[in-house]
Amino acid sequence: MLSVIGLDADDTLWQNERYYRAAEAEFAALLADFADPPALQERVDACHRTNMGIYGVGAKSFTLTLIEAAIDVSDGVVSADVLRKIVEVGRELLAHPIELLPHAREVVETLSAEGYRIVLITKGDLFHQERKIAASLLDNHFDAVEIVSEKRPETYNGIFARHGAGAASAMMVGNSLKSDIIPAITAGAWGVYVPHEQTWALEHAEPPESAPRYRKLAHLGELPALAARIAVGAG
Amino acid sequence: MLSVIGLDADDTLWQNERYYRAAEAEFAALLADFADPPALQERVDACHRTNMGIYGVGAKSFTLTLIEAAIDVSDGVVSADVLRKIVEVGRELLAHPIELLPHAREVVETLSAEGYRIVLITKGDLFHQERKIAASLLDNHFDAVEIVSEKRPETYNGIFARHGAGAASAMMVGNSLKSDIIPAITAGAWGVYVPHEQTWALEHAEPPESAPRYRKLAHLGELPALAARIAVGAG
Repeated sequence: MLSVIGLDADDTLWQNERYYRAAEAEFAALLADFADPPALQERVDACHRTNMGIYGVGAKSFTLTLIEAAIDVSDGVVSADVLRKIVEVGRELLAHPIELLPHAREVVETLSAEGYRIVLITKGDLFHQERKIAASLLDNHFDAVEIVSEKRPETYNGIFARHGAGAASAMMVGNSLKSDIIPAITAGAWGVYVPHEQTWALEHAEPPESAPRYRKLAHLGELPALAARIAVGAG
Repeated sequence: MLSVIGLDADDTLWQNERYYRAAEAEFAALLADFADPPALQERVDACHRTNMGIYGVGAKSFTLTLIEAAIDVSDGVVSADVLRKIVEVGRELLAHPIELLPHAREVVETLSAEGYRIVLITKGDLFHQERKIAASLLDNHFDAVEIVSEKRPETYNGIFARHGAGAASAMMVGNSLKSDIIPAITAGAWGVYVPHEQTWALEHAEPPESAPRYRKLAHLGELPALAARIAVGAG
């Protein structure tokens, strides 16, 4: 029995991390006078780790962190002109078009047509995520959208109880072992890992290979067949 | 019949705007070399109006707007040190303690004890609003919390249908005519305006004096009596 399928959005249904990587590359070029790329990236990552607890995640948090890192790494001598360019780099992150990943549209349409309840479960900035969901033109296939600040086991328990028959009959699908897979499995759901070549370093975790409800797919196109097997108890 | 009561949070249950005003005053002091306060505020407001459609509202959006305004108003010569202080001013907005408004605790406790369904409906940054709600220690009295990016009539229609018997038997209470009162009345609900001495200029609207379901209270303490009258059809 599969009462509800949770789908992650960023880097599961559409490209996301690549825009952040591109922004970091632009940032590194702007700060080239002050630090070489690896040292700069280290500083930025440390700054992100500290700021995540204050700002949460998302493009605005990311932009504020880059500004802070630029001032730090330059010992306060970076120009306002460079900082303005960093603000612009961050703003571009909020404006890029949505590029669906291979199989995303066909899989969402198939699952929806087959009668599964589908909930989009995404972490991050409310305003930005809503815009991306609308721009994806997939939104009419979702039975619900849940934009959350954290993806913890209790997050999944709450969502799967609200939109299905609880975590025991639910599945979460995503590219982040740390946010999508491990906490969903901890909650009692199936965790279906669909790797993306670019995943944020801060989302890294070891795959829960020994968990009976852990599955890994080569690509999203394999999801409907897996869902069908799990639905009949042959997962 | 009153199937659900929606309560706004910022400047309805707890102080919010005063921290933004204080931040703007600190900002004006930091930029005193470049612009006098009224001219600066005009520039900041213009910048907010443009950026709201890109960033949404909230402390991170506000901070990014101040940074941009500082660079603009100084023609790009503001120092990184001043910009660092602006980042810190913005960070303080995310960290201030929650100061409940007069009557807030007693009213929420009374309404909850009297068996009304109460939904907290707040606009802004997901991460920050969740933290404030937890810090208010009022959260166990709310039947639900809805953090939204916009407060439109359809927002209220959706929320009041999900948590009550629809907008026709619902009431929205808040300090913003533009976000809390007018769209709730448009949706068919009661709109109960509780003015706060500080309300963001961008939230200004004319009171809908002629709307039969518009009510204005002198303070939140008057809410339980009004709710009781409306519940028995004597609103």
